Order: sequence, then structure tokens, then C-alpha cells
Amino acid sequence: MDTFGRKFRVSVFGESHGPAVGAVLDGVPAGISLSEEDFMEDIDRRRSGARGTTPRREADLPEILSGVFDGHTTGAPLAIIFRNTNTRSQDYSRFMDVPRPGHADFVAMKKWSGANDPRGGGHFSGRLTLPLVAAGVVAKKIVGTAIDINARLIEIGGVTEMAAIARRYNNEGASGAFPPDGMHGLDGGGKDPVPDTVNSAVGNRGMDPSELWRPELDQAIAEGDSLGGVVECVITGLPAGLGEPFFDSVESLVAHAVFSVPGVRGIEFGHGFPAARMKGSQHNDPFILSDGKCSSNGAGGINGGITNGNPMVFRVAFKPTSSIGKPQSTLDFSTGKMTELVIPGRHDVCFAIRTPVVVEAAAAIVLADLV
Amino acid sequence: MDTFGRKFRVSVFGESHGPAVGAVLDGVPAGISLSEEDFMEDIDRRRSGARGTTPRREADLPEILSGVFDGHTTGAPLAIIFRNTNTRSQDYSRFMDVPRPGHADFVAMKKWSGANDPRGGGHFSGRLTLPLVAAGVVAKKIVGTAIDINARLIEIGGVTEMAAIARRYNNEGASGAFPPDGMHGLDGGGKDPVPDTVNSAVGNRGMDPSELWRPELDQAIAEGDSLGGVVECVITGLPAGLGEPFFDSVESLVAHAVFSVPGVRGIEFGHGFPAARMKGSQHNDPFILSDGKCSSNGAGGINGGITNGNPMVFRVAFKPTSSIGKPQSTLDFSTGKMTELVIPGRHDVCFAIRTPVVVEAAAAIVLADLV
Amino acid sequence: MDTFGRKFRVSVFGESHGPAVGAVLDGVPAGISLSEEDFMEDIDRRRSGARGTTPRREADLPEILSGVFDGHTTGAPLAIIFRNTNTRSQDYSRFMDVPRPGHADFVAMKKWSGANDPRGGGHFSGRLTLPLVAAGVVAKKIVGTAIDINARLIEIGGVTEMAAIARRYNNEGASGAFPPDGMHGLDGGGKDPVPDTVNSAVGNRGMDPSELWRPELDQAIAEGDSLGGVVECVITGLPAGLGEPFFDSVESLVAHAVFSVPGVRGIEFGHGFPAARMKGSQHNDPFILSDGKCSSNGAGGINGGITNGNPMVFRVAFKPTSSIGKPQSTLDFSTGKMTELVIPGRHDVCFAIRTPVVVEAAAAIVLADLV
Amino acid sequence: MDTFGRKFRVSVFGESHGPAVGAVLDGVPAGISLSEEDFMEDIDRRRSGARGTTPRREADLPEILSGVFDGHTTGAPLAIIFRNTNTRSQDYSRFMDVPRPGHADFVAMKKWSGANDPRGGGHFSGRLTLPLVAAGVVAKKIVGTAIDINARLIEIGGVTEMAAIARRYNNEGASGAFPPDGMHGLDGGGKDPVPDTVNSAVGNRGMDPSELWRPELDQAIAEGDSLGGVVECVITGLPAGLGEPFFDSVESLVAHAVFSVPGVRGIEFGHGFPAARMKGSQHNDPFILSDGKCSSNGAGGINGGITNGNPMVFRVAFKPTSSIGKPQSTLDFSTGKMTELVIPGRHDVCFAIRTPVVVEAAAAIVLADLV
Repeated sequence: MDTFGRKFRVSVFGESHGPAVGAVLDGVPAGISLSEEDFMEDIDRRRSGARGTTPRREADLPEILSGVFDGHTTGAPLAIIFRNTNTRSQDYSRFMDVPRPGHADFVAMKKWSGANDPRGGGHFSGRLTLPLVAAGVVAKKIVGTAIDINARLIEIGGVTEMAAIARRYNNEGASGAFPPDGMHGLDGGGKDPVPDTVNSAVGNRGMDPSELWRPELDQAIAEGDSLGGVVECVITGLPAGLGEPFFDSVESLVAHAVFSVPGVRGIEFGHGFPAARMKGSQHNDPFILSDGKCSSNGAGGINGGITNGNPMVFRVAFKPTSSIGKPQSTLDFSTGKMTELVIPGRHDVCFAIRTPVVVEAAAAIVLADLV
Repeated sequence: MDTFGRKFRVSVFGESHGPAVGAVLDGVPAGISLSEEDFMEDIDRRRSGARGTTPRREADLPEILSGVFDGHTTGAPLAIIFRNTNTRSQDYSRFMDVPRPGHADFVAMKKWSGANDPRGGGHFSGRLTLPLVAAGVVAKKIVGTAIDINARLIEIGGVTEMAAIARRYNNEGASGAFPPDGMHGLDGGGKDPVPDTVNSAVGNRGMDPSELWRPELDQAIAEGDSLGGVVECVITGLPAGLGEPFFDSVESLVAHAVFSVPGVRGIEFGHGFPAARMKGSQHNDPFILSDGKCSSNGAGGINGGITNGNPMVFRVAFKPTSSIGKPQSTLDFSTGKMTELVIPGRHDVCFAIRTPVVVEAAAAIVLADLV
Repeated sequence: MDTFGRKFRVSVFGESHGPAVGAVLDGVPAGISLSEEDFMEDIDRRRSGARGTTPRREADLPEILSGVFDGHTTGAPLAIIFRNTNTRSQDYSRFMDVPRPGHADFVAMKKWSGANDPRGGGHFSGRLTLPLVAAGVVAKKIVGTAIDINARLIEIGGVTEMAAIARRYNNEGASGAFPPDGMHGLDGGGKDPVPDTVNSAVGNRGMDPSELWRPELDQAIAEGDSLGGVVECVITGLPAGLGEPFFDSVESLVAHAVFSVPGVRGIEFGHGFPAARMKGSQHNDPFILSDGKCSSNGAGGINGGITNGNPMVFRVAFKPTSSIGKPQSTLDFSTGKMTELVIPGRHDVCFAIRTPVVVEAAAAIVLADLV
Repeated sequence: MDTFGRKFRVSVFGESHGPAVGAVLDGVPAGISLSEEDFMEDIDRRRSGARGTTPRREADLPEILSGVFDGHTTGAPLAIIFRNTNTRSQDYSRFMDVPRPGHADFVAMKKWSGANDPRGGGHFSGRLTLPLVAAGVVAKKIVGTAIDINARLIEIGGVTEMAAIARRYNNEGASGAFPPDGMHGLDGGGKDPVPDTVNSAVGNRGMDPSELWRPELDQAIAEGDSLGGVVECVITGLPAGLGEPFFDSVESLVAHAVFSVPGVRGIEFGHGFPAARMKGSQHNDPFILSDGKCSSNGAGGINGGITNGNPMVFRVAFKPTSSIGKPQSTLDFSTGKMTELVIPGRHDVCFAIRTPVVVEAAAAIVLADLV
């Protein structure tokens, strides 16, 4: 079902080329200040336009249909929609015969016996992350400013953030110490992969990913190919005790929400996959303060599925964009023969660039359900 | 909540040292042949005893309390319990003052204001995976024999299955070609990480992990330390069309269930994290047959959150066992000072060895809910 | 939460004087023919205009935002909204000080600490039954034409349908036998209160309730007072076996949905409350055919919470409209003193007249979730 | 599904003649004092033995399997079972050929294709109300002593409580004023049917129903027939603001839970069905105090689906026991011909006598989910 959450419940709907996409949020507490302007910062972070993202420009203006009165939430369900304004009638019949590799064209036809809306991916479109981001804006208001949810790209096309920053320093003769104070990340060297403090100035809000990874993006554009990336999300200010044992562990809920975002291939918490290669004496986080503060954070802020008061840290792997200009040899289902598919138009070379705010939204939705 | 699933719903309960652990399964179809003997194979796979696992021996005999009549399921809820027979009264008060690093001792106290059952981890104990495995047995019966769910260890302590097998060939002068026909895995070299066929003869059912990784396990035992591992699960025979778009994607549901298993640090599907380093032209899976069969399986059998008829492939990272004999410096919450903690008794050196059948159960529970 | 259903899930949102009311329907099967015109018949049945209903006229035109493509449902969530076009800015501040007796003004303020939308009852408005009726239209399509859901008024202001029809015959010298063939109902005499066949020609579709009960309605209008009524719903064509034992009995689900309709005071199935005064030998329904057909239907088509193949029969009691012109003595919360409240404007004298289609919708939503 | 509730979740399982019946309670707050003795008072109220109830005697001793440690709830799921000790192997094959009128024998066979447990009604047995009562005991502890939940019989076999009490006064020459101070009820005269205070001394705890309605019970026993009854539940001490608008109105939730109890034919709140015959000026409850206190309580303490701080009042109609000794003419499904069925053994002549505590449990479970 297209619904998530128990106490704060999010439902999303819409298709890429239908009249609108939207979300209904149930369980929003009454009295939260909210207007349509409040959505614009996160919507802008998700919007296309940067190098490597699609030139399709939607106004992406939210319209609140219910649940807000006099500038505040009312406690009743909050419905918000985004009209699809840029839905030129393209020829999508090609993709019904030749489902695009990596896309949901084939499974949608199988699941719904051909009754699905095939235009632009229909309900499977990445455009559905727009109402998710909107839900995230409300969720962030619910969890409050004491909890900071901060996601950024730490890798594109196999080049880590640290390597990309170092390249800029070298290339541009930037002044100041390197690496900049507080910088961190998956640096490939395996050192301190999961610090428990975050300097958001080094986050992607501070440095434009389409500049940081410009060489990789330009090359992929030139090849008609695409790139994937890794997003890291760090959440500070969490109280200890969120989450439920067993089925509703914090990791279960966050992973559930994050894997709803199109294109995710993996998620890991704390030390993540490298933890499997560590010894217990290396991976355990000794407590050092009575509020649960540990001297390391390999658990990513979670013990037994419950937050322990340390920063929650997780990383999400995004695949490269499936739509590529480069010719692909795949089956023509109408003829039963292999054919060469070239997907026309321009697409995100690396849609992962647009996803940090989406990952934040997924995390915020989970936390709004738990706090 | 300790409940998972919509149409096939699993609830687990129990504590490590309470009277019993158990599960209630709702939505079990009527007429499935089922007896207590049917549980024993998977329970034995989970049971302790192998090198590197704890010597605590429970009879682990299931008792079906309801939902079965005359050797068949009735359609009514199926309750199954396992008495805890080996619950010697150990001194756990130490862990209330000095919560064990990596364990849920601290968060349980915080969440439940000290009212939690602290004995043996209480409800957070790995013993809760026993009713999960029992639920998996029923779930496997629901999904039917056409769908094969097969998990095995592919890495312990940083040594891949392929490396461990090669070592055995070299050491023992085993005859026959190497690598054995059909072998595969995460071999560290990045070649063909996700084959779409599985030769279960090379799986851990065929070769005892405690023998394959004997050197690593023996060393960790000698050091009083512990090891982690990676489990790969391959599911064949799936129809196309399972899963729901957005929030109930197959990945979302499987990840949700898998992260309920204690000690999981990450999950990845298909190419997983390495997908983030690939180009679209490398990662896309071209269709080659009209049933959805692809020439590669980087998506792990899932497009847009829906199964595409190719084998589902995912990998799960388990941390090293948190309980270690080696002294750890951590906070004594009763004094506010650091202390040296030595956890008495013997524990699983690598509990990951016991988890493949648990991962299968988690996957089976999801599939039983979807088919 | 404003969500109902497990496999067919309905969420409603909106306020009486906000931008729109609407519903999101999840779990709609793909391939069902559906257009905006399909909603009009039931919407017209619910619409105001008859004697005894409010003169507020809304266009009540549905707009489908998602889930429909090329005249058919797609399988993706179906969102439908109704713009509120007649939301003149009335002075509602009076009702914040003097909450209207029988209305939700007081509880909304308490629940949401005054942040609720007070205009026209806000989210508690009977206008929310409009998206419910829309959901019912889709639900009826899902259950199919073999199942007929038919609700009608059987009592207004204490005068039964049979008595009202008899009065018309007497007053108007209508020709033909009386009572008309197939007529039935709660006639006050206790005879055959629950027949198992229905002649819908005698239902309210055939005879306008505002004419049948014209004397009662005219008198209430003259007094500035209001009337209640009883609706009977008969569902034929049901297969045996719908519903779940215990918590999700058919009665539980139908009652849950029906009590979501504003103004409901009671629901009874089959013989209903009179069953408590019968003996087992009178109330039991002997089986007479191998499909489960019984010689009587005191159980209203349900045994043990499961449909038995006989018609489902239930009755719903609606209270008189709470908004009356007649002065009421009630508390002024701003002064702490009793005051005389006269609610301005015109309101439904008997909103129950508009509810049969709403009751049908509630029943249809439950059945769409079960079939 | 056999699960109810969102935050406090109850699952029941078991069959009448299986090994055990039980319940799993999820969402129980930690730290509530609880032992097996705490269940006995309500279990005794439900137990058989009074005139008109079955002589089958079960020990009905609860065993807590999890969720309690050191005399307090732990916050983890609480599992409780009751062994079935009195399950003599009766001949039930007769009821597979000749399903008992009014019972679930027929629908269970249809729903589960004959795989159901037919012994003693299987999962449909009234014995399943035992774990419901146990869940109610815990639920009452969760809602706390400030909220009093009090159900009692107000009618058996068509004779109201008031009439039965008057009869005793007349017959026995009881001293003191009649009616006793504070007495109330559905007295048939339509006066003050829903007072907002309750004198529990007049409730059935104070006066044994099997004595009050002795003539009716004795006559039904003599005839081999059975009786129904009406239970009224009054809940005081409720805060204003419980419940959700629309689908999760308090009435929706209470009705959902109550209709899960076998044998319920109807439920009504406040004035109930008679409200449909009242005018708005009669039925509205004017506010008189700033805490929401009204001068009447026709709404039964609920406005717009939300508690308004006045006592919640509802009544539940129970059918007469379906199992009767009197011969019934019904279909023999094995021959396709009508046969005469005499149900052997002794059964509750009026199982409604045992239901007040079950109705309380259903209400308590709802409230524990809401508070």
C-alpha cells in the first residue's frame, strides 16, 4: 500500500503525467505553523536544474487542500497536491513494446495487466518523491528543531566526497588547511568512517555536488551514460529510547521508508557492511557518559533497534539513472526479438544528486511517527 | 510493535529467561499440512553447537497451541511456543550498572524506565529469532515449493566464502576442478558479484561454515573476541509482480523484516552498494525473454519495487557478536566512572553462523504476505 | 486515523469551508472502467435539495487526480477531490464561545487545543460524507454487480415507512392493493421484521422520502426543530465466507465504517435489539438449502461473524439534526453563564434523508476490502 | 485478522477443544503491577456456574508466558494462555453433516473448505472470550482507576432489570423505598433512559442476575429453549478528546470490538435507536459546565466521535443461545434432506449472563488504545 506510518501516516498518490501528485498526512498534531512557503526550501533542493539533472522544469508549487487553518495545522488530515504542468504528450508506446531496462515498465504491465499509466513511468516516477519531500517538511516540523536531520552526497561515480574536495583544492589552489576542519566521510581509507559529529558547512548544502563531481558528470553526459551515488544521513539531537524491539526497530522503519525511494540499492547503519569485517572489540561502542554517549559510534546511534542518544548515521546507495541515451540491446516484446533501444530526451545523468533531501524526508517521516 | 505483515501476520513474544518464547501467526491459509516435526530442520539449522556458537543447549521443541487440527492448519490463528528450559539464574545485576557495549541493556532501561527484564537480554535476546524461524517454516509452506529461498554465509571475519573454499582446496588437496562448478559469491575481486543461478551444493548446507572459516574462528576464540559475517539470500521461482509501488516495495518489506533480526548492520539488493559506482549502461539489466528474464541481474530481481521474475538476491551484514570475553573499558552507571567489563560465560564467537535460516525466515514471511 | 480498510483502503480529508474535500483510495484493482460521470448518480442521491434538507447547493463535481488512465483504473492510488465552492465567510466565532449542543465544536476545541478549523464544523462536517460516497462508488464497482447493496429510509420521526405509505394510500386514494406487493419493513407490529427479499421498487429510490414523510417534515420546519430516522440496508448476492472470526467479523467492520458517518446512534443486524427478547427456537435460522439458504434470516446473513450466503440486513439509527432554529439554553464558555443560542441559517431538518447512499458507501467499502 | 488496536494491540488465538486459548498484548506500558491473581476477579465473573449457564467447568487459570518480570509489566509483548482442561472427546461429526442453526459450523466449513477445527465451535467458540477478558484486565490497568468501566445486564428475555427488581420487591416483601435510590435503566416507559450517573450497587454485581430473572430462566430450562439479553455499559471518569474524527470515532472502535464478541446483534450509544424518534430539541445535550458537562446525556458522552467528558453509555443486544435442547428442523447436508436436530448436553440457557465482563473488556481494550 502507498501508506506508511502508524501515528503519523503518509499516503502518496499521483502519476508523472496525470493531473497531480500529492500526499495526505494523517496524525499531524494541531497548532504547528505551516504555510505553502515552508515547503519551498526542500522542494528547491529536490528540484532539477543542476548539472547532471533533467531540464524538465516544473513549478512544483504546493497547494494545501485541507488540515491547515489560519496558518496552523488543525489536527485533521493534511492534503497537499502539486499540479503536473509540464506533461507534454510524448510518445510512450515505444516503452510498452520495449520496456526500458532498469525501469518499472515491465513489472507495471505484469502487475496491472497493462492497465497501468505508462506515461513517464506513471506512479513509479521519481516525481512521486515530490510529495514525499513535502511530507518530510511537515515531519521535520513535528520532530522539532532540536533534532537535526542532515543528508548529503558522499560519493558519485565511485569518487568520494573527500577525494572530490581534495581535487578542488589541488586544482583551484584553494586556501586554508586541508581537509577542512570537521570534514569526514567514507574516504576509502577506512579511517573513522562514522564520526559522531557533523559539520554541515562541508555538507552538500555548502558545496554544490554538480561542481564537486563535475568531471565525472561531464564525462557521463558526453558518453550518454549515467552515474550512481551514495548519500549519508546524520541525525543529531535524538533522545534515547525511540523505536520498538523486533519488528519495528528504528533500522527496520528507516530502511522501509528509504527503500520506497526509487533507485535505492542498499542501506547500512553505523559501520555498515564493513562491520562484518570487524571484531567485537573494534565494533562495540563503550559508554562514556550517563546519557548514553559512547566513545565511538559504530552502531550508528542504535542498539537493539532503539536509539541510544548518539547521532543516527546511515548511508544509502543509489543506482545510476536507468534512462540513458546510449543504445541498449534489449527485448522487443511485440516481436520477441532483441532490438536497440535509445531513450530520447534528456534525463538526470545522476539523479542521486537530487536525493539527499528525499532521504531526509524518509527519515523525518519515521521519526515523526516515533517521537 | 512486535507484529509484521498485512495478510500473513506474525507476532513474536518472549524473553530469553522467561517461561517461553513464541509466535502467533494470523492469516495462515487453511488446509496446509503441518506438524511439530516440520519445524525441526530449520530449528536445527539455527541451533547452537557448531564451532563459534554458544554451548547453551535448549531443547527448542515447538508446541503448537492452536490453529492446527488433524495435521492441517485450520485457518484460525496459529500459536506456537518454545519453553525456555535452560534459564539458570545468573547474576545479571552487573549489566544493570554496567550496560554491555553493543547490547540493548542501556536502551531497554531508558525506554522502559528500568522495568525491562534484564536477564539474558530479555526481549532483545537473539533467542527471539527462534519463533521467527518457526514463523518462517510456516511461511515457506505458504509460498510453496516452487519458490526456493536459500541463504548462506558468504563471508566471515573479512574472508569470503570463495577464499575460504580455495584455502580448503589448497590445504587439503581436495580433488576436482576449482572453483567448483557453479560457485559464486562476493569474491572481493568484484567479478560477477550477483549471478542469477545458485548451486546450493556450494551453499553452507553443503559445507560447514565452522569448518570453512575454522582458522578465523579459532583465532577469535583464542583472543576472547568475536567476528561478524555476511549472508546472501537467493530466491528463485518468484513470479513477476509481487510487491507494491512506493511504501510497500519488496525491498522495503524485506529490509523491514531483516532489520528486525538482532545484529544486522546493512542490507543490499542485486549489485548493492557497488551499484553506486557503476554506470547505467553497466548496471541496467536488458530483457532477453518475454517472461522478464534478463541477461544480468544487477537489480536483484526487482524493478520499481516489484519482482520481475528473475531471482531475488540480497545480502545482509551482521556485526560481530557484542558479548566478548576480552576486557572492555566502559562506564559504570552506578558510579559514573569508567570500569573494566569482562563478560563471563561463553557466547557465540560469530552468531552470524546461525543466521542464514533466520534471514530465510524473514524473507519467507514477507513473501507469504505478498503471494 | 482517517483511514479504513486493509486491502482496499480509504482515506478522507477536508473541511467544510476549506479548499476541498477528498479521498485517496488505495488497493483499487487495475482495469475497472471509471470516469467522473460514474460518481454523479450516488452524489445526486446524497445532495441537498429535497424538503427537509439544506438549501446550500454545491456543484459537487468530482475531479480525479490520479489512478485513472484512459478511462480505467490503473492499480495505483486513486485520488479524488471536490472543491468547496460555496464557502461564504460566515461568522463562526459565536460557536467558539457557545459550542452548539450535539455538535463537535466543543470536543474539537478540546482535542486540538483550539487549533481546529471551526468553520461549518470543519473536518467534522457532514460534507465529509461526500468523499465517502465517492469511495463507495468505486467500492461498488470492485464488489461487482452480482452483489446488490440497497439502503433506504424505513422510519422518520417515529413514523415507519409502512405507516407513511399507508397514509399516502388513504389520503390520495391511490389505486391497487395495499400494502404493495413485496413491501416490508419495521412496521411496529413486530411481524416479519427482517424479510430476506427486497423489492427495491418500494425503496426510497422509488418513493421520495420528502413526500412520504411530508407532514412530519413540514411540522418540524414550522417548529424550527429537526427529526431523526432509521435506514435499513439489505445486501444480496453475497457469497458465504466473507469476514474473519473474532476482531474482523463482518459486523465489526460494517459497524466500524457506519459509525464513522456523523449522527449515527446505533446499528443492529438481522433481528437486532428485538433478538434479545426472542427465544433460541424463534431466533435460530434453520438451513434449508445446501448453499446455506435459511428459512428465516434473523442473523441478518451472518453467523459467527462470517457471511452465510443469505442477504445481509442491518439498520442504522440517525439522530435528529443537531442544528436547529429553535432557541436552546446552553453554556457560553466565554462568560461561564447560560445563554440562549439560536443557530442562524437553514439546515437539514432531517439529514437522515440524505444518508441511505452514505450507508451503502460504508457497506460497500467494507465489502470491497473483503471480497 | 484476530488482532485489534493500534497502540495497545490485542491478538487472540485458540480453539475450544485445542491445547489452549490465549492472547498476546502488544504496547503494554512498562511498570504496571501485574500477577496471575489479578485476572481472577474478572475471570470469575465470566465463568460458568450460575443458573442458566453451562455446567462445563474449566479451571481457567492464566499462565503469563512473557512480558512480566518481578511482578511488573516490562514493556515487551505480554502473552497469556489458558490451558483447555475439560475437552472430552465428544462426537462432533454430527455437526459437520448437520450444521447447528445460529452457529458458525456452516460458515467455518465454507470459509476454510472443511479444514476448520469443528470441536466445540473451534475458534468461533465463546471460550475465546476468556483471553478477551484477560486482555481487558490489563487494559483496565492501563486506563487506570480514574476511569470506571461498569457493565451489567438490564434485560433478559424481554423483562427489564427494573421490572425484575420490582417483582422481587413485590414477591419478597423487601423493605425500603422502591425503586431503590439511584436505580435506572431501560424501563420500557421511555423515561430518562440514559442517566449520567450510575449506582453500581444496583448493578449486577450487587444483585445476581440468575436470581433476578429466575422465573424466565427456569421456564426456558424447562422448555429446552434459550434466552437473550441486553447489557448496558457505563464508563465514567473519561477525559474529553478521546477518539478520532471519521473512521476512528469512539463509537466505531467500541462497536468494532464489541461485535467481535460472539452473539451480539446490535449496539447503540446514548439514546440509541430511540434517538431516531426524537426531535433535535429533545435529543441535543446543552452544556452547563466549562468541563463539557451537559444537562442530559443523549449523546452517550460522545460528540463527533470524540468523548466530551460526560459518561460514555452504550447498550449491547445479545441473541438467545443458539444451542438448544428443543428439536429443530434443519438441513442434513450429507443427505440433502431436512432432519430433526437435538443438540445433546447442557448449554448456557442465557449466555448473556456471562457477558457484562466481556463487554467491559472490549470497551477497556479500546480505551487503552486511545488514552
